[in-house]
Amino acid sequence: MAASAPEHIHPREVPLATALAALADPVRLTLVRELAAAEDWERPCGSFDVPVRKAALSHHFAVLRQVGLLEQRDRGQRRYNRLRRPEFDERFPGLLDLALRTDLD
Amino acid sequence: MAASAPEHIHPREVPLATALAALADPVRLTLVRELAAAEDWERPCGSFDVPVRKAALSHHFAVLRQVGLLEQRDRGQRRYNRLRRPEFDERFPGLLDLALRTDLD
Repeated sequence: MAASAPEHIHPREVPLATALAALADPVRLTLVRELAAAEDWERPCGSFDVPVRKAALSHHFAVLRQVGLLEQRDRGQRRYNRLRRPEFDERFPGLLDLALRTDLD
Repeated sequence: MAASAPEHIHPREVPLATALAALADPVRLTLVRELAAAEDWERPCGSFDVPVRKAALSHHFAVLRQVGLLEQRDRGQRRYNRLRRPEFDERFPGLLDLALRTDLD
Protein backbone atom coordinates (compact mmCIF):
# COMPACT_ATOMS: atom_id res chain seq x y z
CA MET A 1 0.00 0.00 0.00
CA ALA A 2 2.61 2.53 1.05
CA ALA A 3 5.46 3.88 -1.02
CA SER A 4 7.64 4.96 1.89
CA ALA A 5 7.78 4.08 5.56
CA PRO A 6 5.47 6.26 7.67
CA GLU A 7 6.92 8.94 9.93
CA HIS A 8 5.99 8.90 13.59
CA ILE A 9 5.71 11.55 16.26
CA HIS A 10 5.72 10.80 19.98
CA PRO A 11 2.72 12.15 21.92
CA ARG A 12 5.02 14.11 24.21
CA GLU A 13 5.83 16.34 21.20
CA VAL A 14 2.15 17.07 20.57
CA PRO A 15 0.29 20.18 21.81
CA LEU A 16 -3.04 19.58 23.53
CA ALA A 17 -5.09 21.51 20.95
CA THR A 18 -3.62 19.35 18.17
CA ALA A 19 -4.48 16.14 20.02
CA LEU A 20 -8.04 17.35 20.64
CA ALA A 21 -8.46 18.26 16.95
CA ALA A 22 -7.25 14.82 15.89
CA LEU A 23 -9.96 13.17 17.99
CA ALA A 24 -12.68 15.67 17.04
CA ASP A 25 -13.73 13.69 13.98
CA PRO A 26 -16.23 10.83 13.74
CA VAL A 27 -14.16 8.80 11.27
CA ARG A 28 -11.01 9.05 13.38
CA LEU A 29 -12.98 8.20 16.52
CA THR A 30 -14.16 5.03 14.76
CA LEU A 31 -10.62 4.12 13.72
CA VAL A 32 -9.33 4.63 17.26
CA ARG A 33 -12.17 2.59 18.75
CA GLU A 34 -11.67 -0.31 16.33
CA LEU A 35 -7.94 -0.25 17.08
CA ALA A 36 -8.60 -0.22 20.82
CA ALA A 37 -10.73 -3.35 20.43
CA ALA A 38 -8.01 -5.19 18.48
CA GLU A 39 -4.60 -6.61 19.32
CA ASP A 40 -1.51 -4.57 18.45
CA TRP A 41 -0.58 -5.02 14.78
CA GLU A 42 -3.70 -7.06 14.10
CA ARG A 43 -5.40 -4.59 11.77
CA PRO A 44 -4.20 -3.68 8.27
CA CYS A 45 -5.30 -0.30 6.91
CA GLY A 46 -7.91 -1.79 4.57
CA SER A 47 -9.80 -3.56 7.36
CA PHE A 48 -11.67 -0.64 8.96
CA ASP A 49 -15.39 -0.10 8.65
CA VAL A 50 -15.49 3.60 7.75
CA PRO A 51 -17.41 5.28 4.91
CA VAL A 52 -14.48 7.06 3.25
CA ARG A 53 -12.36 6.49 0.16
CA LYS A 54 -8.77 5.35 0.29
CA ALA A 55 -7.21 8.82 -0.04
CA ALA A 56 -9.35 10.22 2.78
CA LEU A 57 -8.59 7.19 4.91
CA SER A 58 -4.85 7.69 4.40
CA HIS A 59 -5.26 11.29 5.55
CA HIS A 60 -7.08 10.21 8.70
CA PHE A 61 -4.36 7.67 9.51
CA ALA A 62 -1.73 10.38 8.98
CA VAL A 63 -3.52 12.73 11.39
CA LEU A 64 -3.59 10.02 14.06
CA ARG A 65 0.10 9.27 13.45
CA GLN A 66 0.98 12.97 13.74
CA VAL A 67 -0.47 13.21 17.24
CA GLY A 68 1.27 10.07 18.41
CA LEU A 69 -1.87 7.94 18.60
CA LEU A 70 -0.98 5.50 15.86
CA GLU A 71 2.06 3.42 14.98
CA GLN A 72 2.23 1.85 11.53
CA ARG A 73 4.50 -0.78 9.99
CA ASP A 74 4.61 -2.11 6.47
CA ARG A 75 4.72 -5.86 5.99
CA GLY A 76 4.63 -7.06 2.40
CA GLN A 77 1.95 -5.14 0.57
CA ARG A 78 0.08 -4.20 3.72
CA ARG A 79 0.38 -1.55 6.39
CA TYR A 80 -0.44 -2.67 9.92
CA ASN A 81 -1.52 -0.55 12.85
CA ARG A 82 -1.04 -0.27 16.59
CA LEU A 83 -2.79 2.19 18.91
CA ARG A 84 -0.10 3.90 21.01
CA ARG A 85 -2.24 3.77 24.08
CA PRO A 86 0.33 3.81 26.91
CA GLU A 87 2.33 6.66 25.35
CA PHE A 88 -0.78 8.73 24.63
CA ASP A 89 -2.29 8.04 28.07
CA GLU A 90 0.90 9.19 29.75
CA ARG A 91 0.82 12.52 27.93
CA PHE A 92 -2.97 13.14 27.96
CA PRO A 93 -4.44 11.23 30.92
CA GLY A 94 -8.06 10.22 30.42
CA LEU A 95 -8.45 11.64 26.92
CA LEU A 96 -8.34 8.34 25.08
CA ASP A 97 -10.70 6.75 27.62
CA LEU A 98 -13.17 9.52 26.86
CA ALA A 99 -12.72 9.09 23.10
CA LEU A 100 -13.59 5.40 23.42
CA ARG A 101 -16.97 6.13 25.04
CA THR A 102 -19.54 5.57 22.31
CA ASP A 103 -22.31 6.64 24.71
CA LEU A 104 -21.11 10.25 24.36
CA ASP A 105 -21.57 10.43 20.57
CA MET B 1 -22.96 44.56 23.17
CA ALA B 2 -25.57 41.98 22.23
CA ALA B 3 -28.74 42.57 20.28
CA SER B 4 -30.59 39.48 21.48
CA ALA B 5 -30.18 37.20 24.45
CA PRO B 6 -27.77 34.33 23.77
CA GLU B 7 -29.10 30.79 23.27
CA HIS B 8 -27.71 28.04 25.43
CA ILE B 9 -27.26 24.31 24.99
CA HIS B 10 -26.74 21.90 27.86
CA PRO B 11 -23.60 19.73 27.64
CA ARG B 12 -25.71 16.59 27.81
CA GLU B 13 -27.04 17.48 24.32
CA VAL B 14 -23.51 17.73 22.90
CA PRO B 15 -21.71 14.93 21.01
CA LEU B 16 -18.16 14.17 22.11
CA ALA B 17 -16.57 15.09 18.75
CA THR B 18 -18.24 18.51 18.92
CA ALA B 19 -16.96 19.14 22.44
CA LEU B 20 -13.43 18.11 21.42
CA ALA B 21 -13.54 20.43 18.39
CA ALA B 22 -14.66 23.34 20.56
CA LEU B 23 -11.61 22.92 22.79
CA ALA B 24 -9.19 22.24 19.92
CA ASP B 25 -8.42 25.92 19.44
CA PRO B 26 -5.80 28.06 21.19
CA VAL B 27 -8.04 31.13 21.51
CA ARG B 28 -10.91 29.14 23.01
CA LEU B 29 -8.51 27.35 25.37
CA THR B 30 -7.36 30.78 26.58
CA LEU B 31 -10.96 31.95 27.10
CA VAL B 32 -11.80 28.80 29.05
CA ARG B 33 -8.68 29.11 31.20
CA GLU B 34 -9.31 32.77 32.01
CA LEU B 35 -12.90 31.92 32.92
CA ALA B 36 -11.77 29.03 35.11
CA ALA B 37 -9.53 31.44 37.03
CA ALA B 38 -12.36 33.95 37.60
CA GLU B 39 -15.54 33.97 39.63
CA ASP B 40 -18.84 33.18 37.92
CA TRP B 41 -20.21 36.27 36.12
CA GLU B 42 -17.07 38.24 36.89
CA ARG B 43 -15.84 38.62 33.31
CA PRO B 44 -17.52 40.68 30.59
CA CYS B 45 -16.81 39.68 27.00
CA GLY B 46 -14.44 42.58 26.37
CA SER B 47 -12.11 41.66 29.24
CA PHE B 48 -10.23 38.70 27.73
CA ASP B 49 -6.63 38.82 26.63
CA VAL B 50 -6.85 37.19 23.21
CA PRO B 51 -5.41 38.46 19.91
CA VAL B 52 -8.61 38.46 17.86
CA ARG B 53 -11.07 41.09 16.67
CA LYS B 54 -14.56 41.48 18.08
CA ALA B 55 -16.35 39.46 15.37
CA ALA B 56 -13.97 36.54 15.76
CA LEU B 57 -14.27 36.73 19.54
CA SER B 58 -18.07 36.58 19.30
CA HIS B 59 -17.73 33.46 17.16
CA HIS B 60 -15.45 31.80 19.74
CA PHE B 61 -17.89 32.60 22.54
CA ALA B 62 -20.73 31.15 20.44
CA VAL B 63 -18.80 27.91 19.88
CA LEU B 64 -18.23 27.55 23.63
CA ARG B 65 -21.91 28.27 24.31
CA GLN B 66 -22.98 25.67 21.73
CA VAL B 67 -21.10 22.89 23.51
CA GLY B 68 -22.49 23.85 26.90
CA LEU B 69 -19.23 25.23 28.26
CA LEU B 70 -20.31 28.84 28.58
CA GLU B 71 -23.30 30.64 30.03
CA GLN B 72 -23.82 34.30 29.14
CA ARG B 73 -26.10 37.01 30.52
CA ASP B 74 -26.58 40.56 29.37
CA ARG B 75 -26.51 43.27 32.00
CA GLY B 76 -26.82 46.81 30.70
CA GLN B 77 -24.48 47.20 27.74
CA ARG B 78 -22.30 44.29 28.73
CA ARG B 79 -22.44 40.52 28.36
CA TYR B 80 -21.09 38.55 31.30
CA ASN B 81 -19.77 34.99 31.35
CA ARG B 82 -19.79 31.89 33.49
CA LEU B 83 -17.91 28.66 32.80
CA ARG B 84 -20.43 25.78 33.11
CA ARG B 85 -17.90 23.61 34.84
CA PRO B 86 -20.10 21.24 36.88
CA GLU B 87 -22.45 20.54 33.96
CA PHE B 88 -19.60 19.99 31.51
CA ASP B 89 -17.62 17.83 33.97
CA GLU B 90 -20.63 15.61 34.52
CA ARG B 91 -20.98 14.96 30.80
CA PHE B 92 -17.27 14.78 29.85
CA PRO B 93 -15.32 13.76 32.97
CA GLY B 94 -11.74 14.99 32.98
CA LEU B 95 -11.88 16.85 29.66
CA LEU B 96 -12.01 20.33 31.12
CA ASP B 97 -9.26 19.51 33.62
CA LEU B 98 -7.08 18.51 30.69
CA ALA B 99 -7.98 21.66 28.77
CA LEU B 100 -6.85 23.79 31.71
CA ARG B 101 -3.34 22.27 31.73
CA THR B 102 -1.13 24.91 30.15
CA ASP B 103 1.88 22.54 30.45
CA LEU B 104 0.41 20.48 27.58
CA ASP B 105 0.38 23.33 25.04
